Formats: sequence, C-alpha cells, structure tokens
Amino acid sequence: MQRIMNNPDNIVDEMLKGFLKAHSDIVESTENGRVVKAKDIPEGKVGVVTGGGSGHKPAFVGYVGKNMCDAAAVGEICSSPTAAAFLDACKVADQGKGVACLYGNYSGDNMNVKMAVKMAKKAGITVKTVVANDDVASAPKDQREKRRGVAGEVLMWKVGGAKAAKGGDLDEVIAAAQKAIDNTRSVGIGLTPCTLPAVGHPNFEIKEGTMEVGIGHHGEPGIEVCPLESANEMAKRMVDVVVPDYPFVEGDEVVVLVSGLGATPVMELYVLYDEIDRLLTEKGIKTHKAYVGNYFTSLEMMGATLTVMKLDDELKELIDMPAYSMGLKQD
Amino acid sequence: MQRIMNNPDNIVDEMLKGFLKAHSDIVESTENGRVVKAKDIPEGKVGVVTGGGSGHKPAFVGYVGKNMCDAAAVGEICSSPTAAAFLDACKVADQGKGVACLYGNYSGDNMNVKMAVKMAKKAGITVKTVVANDDVASAPKDQREKRRGVAGEVLMWKVGGAKAAKGGDLDEVIAAAQKAIDNTRSVGIGLTPCTLPAVGHPNFEIKEGTMEVGIGHHGEPGIEVCPLESANEMAKRMVDVVVPDYPFVEGDEVVVLVSGLGATPVMELYVLYDEIDRLLTEKGIKTHKAYVGNYFTSLEMMGATLTVMKLDDELKELIDMPAYSMGLKQD
Repeated sequence: MQRIMNNPDNIVDEMLKGFLKAHSDIVESTENGRVVKAKDIPEGKVGVVTGGGSGHKPAFVGYVGKNMCDAAAVGEICSSPTAAAFLDACKVADQGKGVACLYGNYSGDNMNVKMAVKMAKKAGITVKTVVANDDVASAPKDQREKRRGVAGEVLMWKVGGAKAAKGGDLDEVIAAAQKAIDNTRSVGIGLTPCTLPAVGHPNFEIKEGTMEVGIGHHGEPGIEVCPLESANEMAKRMVDVVVPDYPFVEGDEVVVLVSGLGATPVMELYVLYDEIDRLLTEKGIKTHKAYVGNYFTSLEMMGATLTVMKLDDELKELIDMPAYSMGLKQD
Repeated sequence: MQRIMNNPDNIVDEMLKGFLKAHSDIVESTENGRVVKAKDIPEGKVGVVTGGGSGHKPAFVGYVGKNMCDAAAVGEICSSPTAAAFLDACKVADQGKGVACLYGNYSGDNMNVKMAVKMAKKAGITVKTVVANDDVASAPKDQREKRRGVAGEVLMWKVGGAKAAKGGDLDEVIAAAQKAIDNTRSVGIGLTPCTLPAVGHPNFEIKEGTMEVGIGHHGEPGIEVCPLESANEMAKRMVDVVVPDYPFVEGDEVVVLVSGLGATPVMELYVLYDEIDRLLTEKGIKTHKAYVGNYFTSLEMMGATLTVMKLDDELKELIDMPAYSMGLKQD
C-alpha cells in the first residue's frame, strides 16, 4: 500500500490538524475535535451544517467557509460522524435562528443526525434537515428516498449556504437546499477500487479492462459491470442515466459538475466533460455553469461522477453567489 | 490501463476543449489551438506567460487568470510546447510593455523558449525570461542552473503575475519572479509511477514497499530509493533536503506548498503537512501561508512534493494578493 500515513488509527485526527493549520484563514477548530467551524460567521444568520465520513476530500470539511457551510462533523474514514459531533456542529453554527443540517442519505448519518436533532431540541436549538439522494443508480426512481447522496451534495451546500448568507430564514434555507437536491441527479463510473488505510487491501474489486456503472463512493455496487469504454462512450452512458431520470429536457438551464473519484488525472475529467457538454447541447440543454475537478472523492479510486442540476431563477442566483471554502472558491 | 480517454493522440486537444468550456469565465481560446489566454486582461500591463507539457494539471493552463499568468503554451503530454506556441502566447499577452516568460528548466522548454524569444524580437516584442530551478534533488547546489523546475513554479507565477498586475514594468516583474524562484526550494517523493496514455504501461518503476526521494515530474531518477516510510519520516526527509539547501534559518518567514503528484488522497497531504509544519516551527521557521493540494501533478503518480519559499516584504505582499485561476484562487 503506497500511501502517506502514520498509524492509520490516527489519520483522521492528523489530517484535521494539518487542514486547520493550512486553512486558518477559512476554518477554525472547536472544543469537539471532530467538528470544524467557519471563521468569522456573519452574525444573525441561519446556521448551515453538514458532516460525513472522511476520505472524500474536499467533502466534507472542505465545504465549510464563507457563503457555504458554517460547520462540519467529521467521521472516521467512510464512517458517519457521531451524533455528538453532529450536535456540536449544530451548536457552534446556531445563532438562535435555527440550523439547516444538509447531509447525505446513508444509514449511519441518518441515525446520528436524527439523534442530534433530538438532542439539539432539548438544548433549545431548532434543527431541520435535507437528505441528499442524487445518486440515480442506487435505487429506482419510485424509491428516491432510498437513493444515496453523492456529489450533488456539493450543489446542495452551495445553494443552502448562499440562501443563509442572503438572510433567508430557516424554512427558506431548507426549501432552497431541498429544491437544489430535488433538481439534481448524479451517476458515477468506477475504474479502480480504493484501499482503506486501516485495512491495507481494496475492499472491493473492479477488474482491469472493466468498469462499474453506478458505483457508490464506498464501493457500493452499481447497476452494471461492463468492458472499459472510451471517454465519449462513458459520457454518453452517464448522460443516458442522468438525463431521463429527472428528466432534463430541451430548454433547461443546468449546472454540470464532473468530479473525479480521487486518482483519475484531472485532464481526463476535461475530456469527459467536453463530450458531456456536447451531448447536453445536442439535447437543447444549456449549461449555465460547470464545475470540473476533484469535488467529492473516495481516497484513491479512479473514475468520475456526473451531476446535473436544473436551475430556476432562485437557484441560479444562489449558485452564482461568491463562495470561499477550501473545496469551492468562486468570485 | 483504467483511464478515461478516446484516441490518446487527441487527448490534449480534447482536454483543452473541455477546459475552455468549463472555465469560460477565466480563460479563452486563441487562434493558436495550443495557446490559452486569460479573459479580460487589464490594459497596459506587462504580459506574463508560461507553458509546458500536459499531464501536470493544474499546471500549466490552470494558472492562467486574474493576477496570474496572461497566457500559457500547451505541449503534448510531458513534452514541451512548440516554439511557435510560446511565441503566440507572448503575442496574445503583449501590450507593448513586454512579456515575462516564466517557465521550468527542461531542455525542450529551454530550446523552444529561446527560439520564441528570438522570433518575438523580430516581431517587435521584448520577452525576458525566468527559468525555474527549485528542485533540490536534480543537481548539486553549486550547479543550480542544472536543476529542474517543479512545484515552485506555482509560487513564481503567483509572484510574477501579482507584480505585473500591480503595474510593475518588465524588469520589475522579471526581478520579482527571479527572486521568488531564487528563494524557493522543492523536493518530491514518488510512491508509484505514471502511465502515459499513448504508451499504456508505466515508463519507470517504483517497487511496492519502496519510495523514490527526489523523483522528477516525469519519473526522472531521484537521489535515493529506500523502503517506504511513515508520513512523519517522509516529512522529516523532505524538510532535511529542502531546509539546509537554501538554507532556511530561524526567524525566516516562508510560504509552504505541499502538492500531491496526482493520485495520493488529499487527506494524506494534510497528514504530511501537519508534520512538516511542526518540524519547521521547531526550527523557528514561521509559515506565513500554506498551500496544500494537487497544485502540480504527474498524471496518476502517487507521492508528494514539498516547496518552501523565503519571504521578504515584497514577496509577502505579492503572495497575499488575490488571484483567480482554475488552479489557484485566493481572496
């Protein structure tokens, strides 16, 4: 295992120490060592919180910052943060206006957020939630509540963070973030597995010369294993999963996010994006804004995800708002 | 080879098409399909140009933008751009105030830039150059002119771009960029090789359980192959190569840049940075600003580079200036 680490049991804490030092202009530590908070949160706003397992950088702490999330709870690698961490994230983000907890649909996160919401209520803090479920491949369309949250979460945080920064009240922030994820669909293609530092060998297999369509960020099985295709064929396959599911139609304006899974060279993401944009344009779907890069990863997995979000006037304004976090900076 | 591509012969052009579409708020195409230029270059400033082979994203086109480079020439994967591309980059960046061409010390780049400077002179454009040579491991200290340019180039572009944006004349921009690279030292540790798309297999080898200290971005041999070490041991090894070479001493203020080589999980870069910062602090060296992430990569190589730059008042002001490019955004 060719990796940069000390004792794998300490990797999350050591990562957080380095992260907090490197980005001391954006984030700061809190009493709970597994909660990162934004520096200089503007007074009187609704708090925006997220959290999730480690190994998905920039997610989740990389999206704490100006006009983004106010705090994030940090879990072990590929494991949910504790309920206590979610609670403490809510506490540091709360300013008496309530907290929007925007997270992904995984059983551990669901359970721990639910407990944190109850504990927060007892502490006098109102927490409302949006659960991201943008991953088309993880369940049929009539069972959207079973779908996982993947890179679409980044757009949900962007929208929710911007709405709160603009002075939206708790219900307005929740409504905007919910609309963002309701308007968003994603799919991933995995080319290689990843290795958890504490395990030392891949916890699933993708055979050389094959690819797994619909793979999850933790190697959850996809919808099809097929022979490795060209970039253009992969683009078509991804567009063909994502577009009809929402469905995105002629005349729609969208945000497109192409994220690497960690180890795929970034130049290849641009090759993929070029064809995705061509296919969407051919369908009369107009890309208002594109994000291409490593936005939501799985350690050193190879592969990519495609995320498409349908815009309306409100979402466009919120997406276009400046933001400043480690993982997403825009003027 | 688990990669996202079509015909490997077209990968650079396809990447550029996707890059230009995705970042149309920052960059635009030019008549020369292998030259990318910044959008909305402020009038009357000295031009700042770079260029290099592909496969090192964000380098080189990712550092074209506001207060950064005005144009970049693009080569094939791991190959220098042509002299014509360097010339055309100078032409689109020139506003009659001259052009600073800031590039890395590789034989192909040296030859092609030299030709481009001559051709530019004939066309009435004054081009002066700074050649980055920050890679300590690539030649002894008394032969600095033989050393390669690596991730220190990012700091050279940041400083040169800022100086030009502040209205510096050509000699002042060249002097600032030269000082930036003179004050900068880097070293890399490679953990896995990379595979050029057109070749299909790694063009060099790093055995499992070993690491190569001082490796170059194209797999150029380093100074030592040794058994794989812990993150803290790697940090010490890197600091012990970089610090005594300049030398950085107690009381110095520095910029630290830790870049992944492509496929190393970003969380591991923070683990490495945490220990690097501790070692520098122990030596009385103060980090004014840190950059941690994938700033200068080699396709899907695993490993990392450490770059340290000594600051003075001028360099600090230029490093702190806002910038907006795909690879480096700061408020």
